[in-house]
Amino acid sequence: MFVDLPESELRQYRSSQADPADFDAFWRDTLASSRRHALGVAVEPVDTGLQTVDVFDMTFAGYEGQPVRAWLRVPHAATGPLATIVQFQGYGGGRARATEDLLWASAGYAHLLVDTRGQGSTWGGGDTPDPEGSGPQGPGFMTRGIDSRETYYYRRVFTDAVRAIEAARSLEVVDSDRIVVLGGSQGGGISLAVAGLVDGLAGVFPRVPFLCDFPRSTTITDSDPYKEIGRFLATHRHKAEAAHGVLAYFDGVNFAKRASARAWFTTALMDPVCPPSTVFGAYNEYAGPKEITVWPYNGHEGGGAYDDEATLRILADLFA
Amino acid sequence: MFVDLPESELRQYRSSQADPADFDAFWRDTLASSRRHALGVAVEPVDTGLQTVDVFDMTFAGYEGQPVRAWLRVPHAATGPLATIVQFQGYGGGRARATEDLLWASAGYAHLLVDTRGQGSTWGGGDTPDPEGSGPQGPGFMTRGIDSRETYYYRRVFTDAVRAIEAARSLEVVDSDRIVVLGGSQGGGISLAVAGLVDGLAGVFPRVPFLCDFPRSTTITDSDPYKEIGRFLATHRHKAEAAHGVLAYFDGVNFAKRASARAWFTTALMDPVCPPSTVFGAYNEYAGPKEITVWPYNGHEGGGAYDDEATLRILADLFA
Amino acid sequence: MFVDLPESELRQYRSSQADPADFDAFWRDTLASSRRHALGVAVEPVDTGLQTVDVFDMTFAGYEGQPVRAWLRVPHAATGPLATIVQFQGYGGGRARATEDLLWASAGYAHLLVDTRGQGSTWGGGDTPDPEGSGPQGPGFMTRGIDSRETYYYRRVFTDAVRAIEAARSLEVVDSDRIVVLGGSQGGGISLAVAGLVDGLAGVFPRVPFLCDFPRSTTITDSDPYKEIGRFLATHRHKAEAAHGVLAYFDGVNFAKRASARAWFTTALMDPVCPPSTVFGAYNEYAGPKEITVWPYNGHEGGGAYDDEATLRILADLFA
Amino acid sequence: MFVDLPESELRQYRSSQADPADFDAFWRDTLASSRRHALGVAVEPVDTGLQTVDVFDMTFAGYEGQPVRAWLRVPHAATGPLATIVQFQGYGGGRARATEDLLWASAGYAHLLVDTRGQGSTWGGGDTPDPEGSGPQGPGFMTRGIDSRETYYYRRVFTDAVRAIEAARSLEVVDSDRIVVLGGSQGGGISLAVAGLVDGLAGVFPRVPFLCDFPRSTTITDSDPYKEIGRFLATHRHKAEAAHGVLAYFDGVNFAKRASARAWFTTALMDPVCPPSTVFGAYNEYAGPKEITVWPYNGHEGGGAYDDEATLRILADLFA
Amino acid sequence: MFVDLPESELRQYRSSQADPADFDAFWRDTLASSRRHALGVAVEPVDTGLQTVDVFDMTFAGYEGQPVRAWLRVPHAATGPLATIVQFQGYGGGRARATEDLLWASAGYAHLLVDTRGQGSTWGGGDTPDPEGSGPQGPGFMTRGIDSRETYYYRRVFTDAVRAIEAARSLEVVDSDRIVVLGGSQGGGISLAVAGLVDGLAGVFPRVPFLCDFPRSTTITDSDPYKEIGRFLATHRHKAEAAHGVLAYFDGVNFAKRASARAWFTTALMDPVCPPSTVFGAYNEYAGPKEITVWPYNGHEGGGAYDDEATLRILADLFA
Amino acid sequence: MFVDLPESELRQYRSSQADPADFDAFWRDTLASSRRHALGVAVEPVDTGLQTVDVFDMTFAGYEGQPVRAWLRVPHAATGPLATIVQFQGYGGGRARATEDLLWASAGYAHLLVDTRGQGSTWGGGDTPDPEGSGPQGPGFMTRGIDSRETYYYRRVFTDAVRAIEAARSLEVVDSDRIVVLGGSQGGGISLAVAGLVDGLAGVFPRVPFLCDFPRSTTITDSDPYKEIGRFLATHRHKAEAAHGVLAYFDGVNFAKRASARAWFTTALMDPVCPPSTVFGAYNEYAGPKEITVWPYNGHEGGGAYDDEATLRILADLFA
Repeated sequence: MFVDLPESELRQYRSSQADPADFDAFWRDTLASSRRHALGVAVEPVDTGLQTVDVFDMTFAGYEGQPVRAWLRVPHAATGPLATIVQFQGYGGGRARATEDLLWASAGYAHLLVDTRGQGSTWGGGDTPDPEGSGPQGPGFMTRGIDSRETYYYRRVFTDAVRAIEAARSLEVVDSDRIVVLGGSQGGGISLAVAGLVDGLAGVFPRVPFLCDFPRSTTITDSDPYKEIGRFLATHRHKAEAAHGVLAYFDGVNFAKRASARAWFTTALMDPVCPPSTVFGAYNEYAGPKEITVWPYNGHEGGGAYDDEATLRILADLFA
Repeated sequence: MFVDLPESELRQYRSSQADPADFDAFWRDTLASSRRHALGVAVEPVDTGLQTVDVFDMTFAGYEGQPVRAWLRVPHAATGPLATIVQFQGYGGGRARATEDLLWASAGYAHLLVDTRGQGSTWGGGDTPDPEGSGPQGPGFMTRGIDSRETYYYRRVFTDAVRAIEAARSLEVVDSDRIVVLGGSQGGGISLAVAGLVDGLAGVFPRVPFLCDFPRSTTITDSDPYKEIGRFLATHRHKAEAAHGVLAYFDGVNFAKRASARAWFTTALMDPVCPPSTVFGAYNEYAGPKEITVWPYNGHEGGGAYDDEATLRILADLFA
Repeated sequence: MFVDLPESELRQYRSSQADPADFDAFWRDTLASSRRHALGVAVEPVDTGLQTVDVFDMTFAGYEGQPVRAWLRVPHAATGPLATIVQFQGYGGGRARATEDLLWASAGYAHLLVDTRGQGSTWGGGDTPDPEGSGPQGPGFMTRGIDSRETYYYRRVFTDAVRAIEAARSLEVVDSDRIVVLGGSQGGGISLAVAGLVDGLAGVFPRVPFLCDFPRSTTITDSDPYKEIGRFLATHRHKAEAAHGVLAYFDGVNFAKRASARAWFTTALMDPVCPPSTVFGAYNEYAGPKEITVWPYNGHEGGGAYDDEATLRILADLFA
Repeated sequence: MFVDLPESELRQYRSSQADPADFDAFWRDTLASSRRHALGVAVEPVDTGLQTVDVFDMTFAGYEGQPVRAWLRVPHAATGPLATIVQFQGYGGGRARATEDLLWASAGYAHLLVDTRGQGSTWGGGDTPDPEGSGPQGPGFMTRGIDSRETYYYRRVFTDAVRAIEAARSLEVVDSDRIVVLGGSQGGGISLAVAGLVDGLAGVFPRVPFLCDFPRSTTITDSDPYKEIGRFLATHRHKAEAAHGVLAYFDGVNFAKRASARAWFTTALMDPVCPPSTVFGAYNEYAGPKEITVWPYNGHEGGGAYDDEATLRILADLFA
Repeated sequence: MFVDLPESELRQYRSSQADPADFDAFWRDTLASSRRHALGVAVEPVDTGLQTVDVFDMTFAGYEGQPVRAWLRVPHAATGPLATIVQFQGYGGGRARATEDLLWASAGYAHLLVDTRGQGSTWGGGDTPDPEGSGPQGPGFMTRGIDSRETYYYRRVFTDAVRAIEAARSLEVVDSDRIVVLGGSQGGGISLAVAGLVDGLAGVFPRVPFLCDFPRSTTITDSDPYKEIGRFLATHRHKAEAAHGVLAYFDGVNFAKRASARAWFTTALMDPVCPPSTVFGAYNEYAGPKEITVWPYNGHEGGGAYDDEATLRILADLFA
Repeated sequence: MFVDLPESELRQYRSSQADPADFDAFWRDTLASSRRHALGVAVEPVDTGLQTVDVFDMTFAGYEGQPVRAWLRVPHAATGPLATIVQFQGYGGGRARATEDLLWASAGYAHLLVDTRGQGSTWGGGDTPDPEGSGPQGPGFMTRGIDSRETYYYRRVFTDAVRAIEAARSLEVVDSDRIVVLGGSQGGGISLAVAGLVDGLAGVFPRVPFLCDFPRSTTITDSDPYKEIGRFLATHRHKAEAAHGVLAYFDGVNFAKRASARAWFTTALMDPVCPPSTVFGAYNEYAGPKEITVWPYNGHEGGGAYDDEATLRILADLFA
């Protein structure tokens, strides 16, 4: 069933999320601090048994120089520079096994699939630790470090993601001017953060993006992971205002206002996990050229392989 | 939690499934009848946008000449003859989109991913109709045509599968002596049927196979799709004996007794969908050389990508 | 809880379902084709052990002459012509056992309880096959043959139902001018189709009718069987428009526009299976004299025996 | 799935329920006390609109003279004396509407369908109050008055049931020597109690009987209504021994030991509500001639209409 | 997720509950009748092993003189007169064990925790019987005696509660002018009834109160215990109007109109058990000075210990 | 329903958990390292408004000197030395609010309720951070740092607990020779660890203890939190052996072997969270004097207030 506003109202909906005055300063300082560490990119070939795709185990220095793992996949023996897809994962997942996710490299692109620190134990195993501790937090990652914007978990994740772009750009096989970022759910939310923090991207593909419009998303659904925040605040009843003050620095709505790259969003009208109004909350603020695909009968799976095929066509046009 | 017998008892367990006296005659006649129709293999290239893998939309004549669809994927510009993987799908799924499932072709094999007639509307869309009607049946495919062995749905599916091997063998790109069959869940059940009905296979990979040990599987779990049979018999209380009489002709236990190709099974101790005793029911009867991987902490997802990686290593050895 | 619009809005609600230009031609041709087959009515007495009611196992030629089963029940030794109730069953059920559903015959009426082809394996066993195959379909009957209006499952079901009236009218015990049609849920939807396709009915009793207002019913509830369509379209994402184009030929809203017999609807405000707005979607279009009973605290069970008692009173008046 | 012991063990299983030394004295005194009140049978014809069955609203004096309601149904204008079925209802239900349950009268029998005091608000509305209060009790009827055998709810219910037989025997239309008692679930449990307390019954039909083998039934299932007792004891932790001491006076196992009439039990191997071992707990103690039908694929619905048809055949033989 | 109207609409919402003309007469007569019985207060010390709090097992004559149990807790060796908290329990619970709920006495108050008759078998065991029987009722207490306002269960409960205040006032340790009533959920509903029926209270603390705004609460949620009424009316379809006629005499909305004591309500925006609109339905009618705390991220647990701490502060001010 | 072995088998059951050769060395080194940091006990009075109990906000140096929070509660103005209860919390909870849990201080004991680091966001809010990061982990705390025994979360928690005893012993109000440890579920597991690591305890009260018998507890239940480990291993399929190697250092079974203080266990036969065999797995190894209370009809709530009352009686005897 449709879980949210009618589509006509979705297209008019405006998020109530505030835009913190020092949002840009916070992120500028955050990134500057991490950039003091060398990128430290290491790329090791993996013996996968594949013949048409080469896979590399890549490590780079993310937040405050902490190592982040990714798979780099390219067409066999490709030298580049190639148009490149940097992909971020959905909540709970990691970069998974080296032999998975062969689509983008098979289509002739360089493909960097980046771990989300600490995650990757629910599906698609991850290999990247999150070396930072936390105040009291609920199960999951949504409230890790939520006591301050400095300690909040996604400060590290988004910094890792920005550094992932910079690491990609450092590779010979990558054409720095032809990088797009892509991801579904949490990966879509990270893509929006990257779109708001990194210049010169060729495109952004936030699919059924998560991490958007917290004032609404924390109150409109009982699905995890947004509900993790609600459960935390149900226990820590005195922290609601402070928590939302922190979340404003990590909301896709605010990153969307600062983005300039061309974007292709998707959303699904039966998605209780990332309800469409929260996606439109970011989409309607998105400052760059944009399109959105609305899947009427889908839930959080969104367009699935149909989205992949559409992206292949868009990329072919984009890089023609 | 472990859903079935302890592993030590699993390894001793013997299914009570009967071996119908005319089992072989039934299948010989069934296949002979369908073989009167020309194979009618058609292979059309698909414009996927992929560069390292070529995908073909393949049609061949299955049961009684009825058309069955499959994707044929090969490394770009491969001419063969290649070692080949013929794969069957899990319950409810179809061959899905042309751009999915690139692993086997990327590893240098020809890969034929065959539709299951009528299915492919629950996940991984299918494109093959099932032109046969049915007596009263429950939702799903488990009781379609269950009134007789002649009309039972899986008679058509297994015939399609045998014909898929024959269609593969008709292709220049395929090395007829180096074909393995592989599938998970229903695809594992179909693989067992093929192993029992087709000679000269190089290997069989039934993963968490379904369609095994019906006397036990219809009474030991409340999970679909086995439960479809139970619900049908809860309504049609007078048909239980007859239905089991039909099912004996389609039970992986009976196909296993007739198989000779080397086999690598997998099963999972927390799998309520295809409980491990029903897998061992087939495995313990399997007449060819065999191994089984037991995943202790997994459910019906079994080994997932870990199974794929193991299969890649086995195939590399097998075809070295 | 109330699952839909407030009652005042329900009474104003108008469905958005389109009225296909060739709707009447489609059904005229469909029925004409099937009418080329003889009705072939066979009526066999059943040895039930009952003393006050005689039960007959009736067969007649439905869609394209295919045999359809029904129970004919009459007061013991009745010769007629009797006022007659033709009843259709809810989703998943069949005509059930000969000794069930004695109410209407005990009240002095002829009662024809018609199987729904292929169904009757979930409850109330059925005995009528559906000899037609289907393209890829989801579990259940809602998407069987949905690829075209010609192959859609309910084309056959509704034709069977029209032929059931004609078969009833061919019986001596039936008074052709005093036939009412009745059914709950799917039986209500079939009753509406009959009301739109057959002249001269004395009354129509669509109770909590299903198969109404597909544009809304496929998006307003997650309950089966409407949800079967949603799941199909979630997989076959490119077929939504075509499927709705087909469904328009089978929507109770469109049959209601063409009905003329007096009708007594029922609906329930807590019914998530056939939400009341979808019932009002048909009711508000119904072209004949009409009443509707609204049960505030009931779900899909609607009025149950209270509806039966009301119908007994209405029939007594109608046929006084 | 099978929810209990294998059938071979079921047939050997013996309940651990104790047989209180003063069980017979308790029930003799209980019945004697209520028999001091006149039976006070009142039988009022109901205007149902039915033509083949006459329905009467019957009231009689149950426990301590408190009025109990029942429907008496007979073939139209029958004068008797007729073989008679006295039926008790499942948990939560009442005698329902006058126009329901026409089977037995349509088969030529007198049919007395007795309310269960206080019940009939969950399904099949009831009309009989339970004028007695209770100590603290959980939702439902299982722990009402459980503080002593004198105040326990089923003391009143079973006394009502015994008085129902006596009331039936007082009617001209009833043949006192040809009375059978029948009921499903709670109705089966009441039937067993009647079988243990009343002489001269022609037959007993406990279908999937409830109220049996409390030491096992309160610990082997999480389904209501047995679980009502478990929840009560989870709160009133100090009352477990006392409660079981009370329940021993109301256990079908103990009534079965005292029964002499011929009995036809049914049970279902997938019934989590009245698990088959608890039914066999009573069946294996049953002192009269006995048979049991085991439905392998059914849950608590048991044999449904199949059981009815079997009962019709048994009754025809019995009263031939 | 938010389960009800936005907070701005909640503050404007007005219940549609009717105000029966003889509401005051009904309650005046009800209380007068019970007051003909002596209060019969008995207070027995309990040997708890506690050193800082003395606990007494108190009994008093409630409705029509029937005994009601409560715990009286005071600071060790307190002689009073003390400011006093009379507390009523949530649905299903009783006064629990003597050693629980030490907060209020530890804060220096007399604390009377009153059983709810018949309840206390779901959690927090109770010791008070409900000696009155009932017509047919559903599981639970919501429909016990609902056939008339005279027999309705809460007539007895609210009378018990009024008598509890009178019993408290009869104690030397209690300061009759400094009594507040407090309770969560059902305890909040009882508190509102007391506020409408008793003069001279120092304060009222209805937390997430139940038993409010029946026209809305019985139709806006599927959660028990409100749903108990809906299920009853789903079976007894003809009793809806009568039942609501009875409920109007027991609705917190109507008691709120008659209250004068200062009140501190709480409600939670994610509470499906006592949805916030039904709380505001009472709050917005409340005739005395009032405040309400709205917990945005909580369900039926409301403010929990945060509410306790706020109450401690309010009481300290109130009795400073 | 009973969820595990019959009680007679429980009493014979022996866990298969291994006893690592360097278990004692590991813990000796662990504790020695943390003891290099000063205990740093700080005790601040809290203004709670309570009159009979004084509450102090206590901080002490736990694992590697990291600060841990606790509530210290004593009878008002108590000077000691008092017999003392050190309590640890169940999974997900923290020390909660200062005004909660007044029982033990009201009974005349000093009561130290210790936070579990990082927890306290699911219920009973906590105030203690866990400053250590982790490799990839699943939601919750069970797999935090599970990659090695050095980094495993419970190494820090158990060290905090040992230091809590030492901190308690440093207080004047505490009688160092009369300390008991108590806790339910996780708190019971921590109590067992303390019993194995600390000498001179007067008693141990592990109620329905968690963290026991990992080889069995990770495979016998699907309930969290044990299932957290299963889900982790379902993803990280290659880490099962290593993870169990780590867990052996934290298993209550192994601590039980090393304990000497008198112990009172409780367990519940219907507890799916900490199934009774896993409790008996520790109990049957417990090396000190021991008793166990078995609650037959309870789940994970165990004895609740009944356990508290029993403990009060035991403590009164113990410290008489």
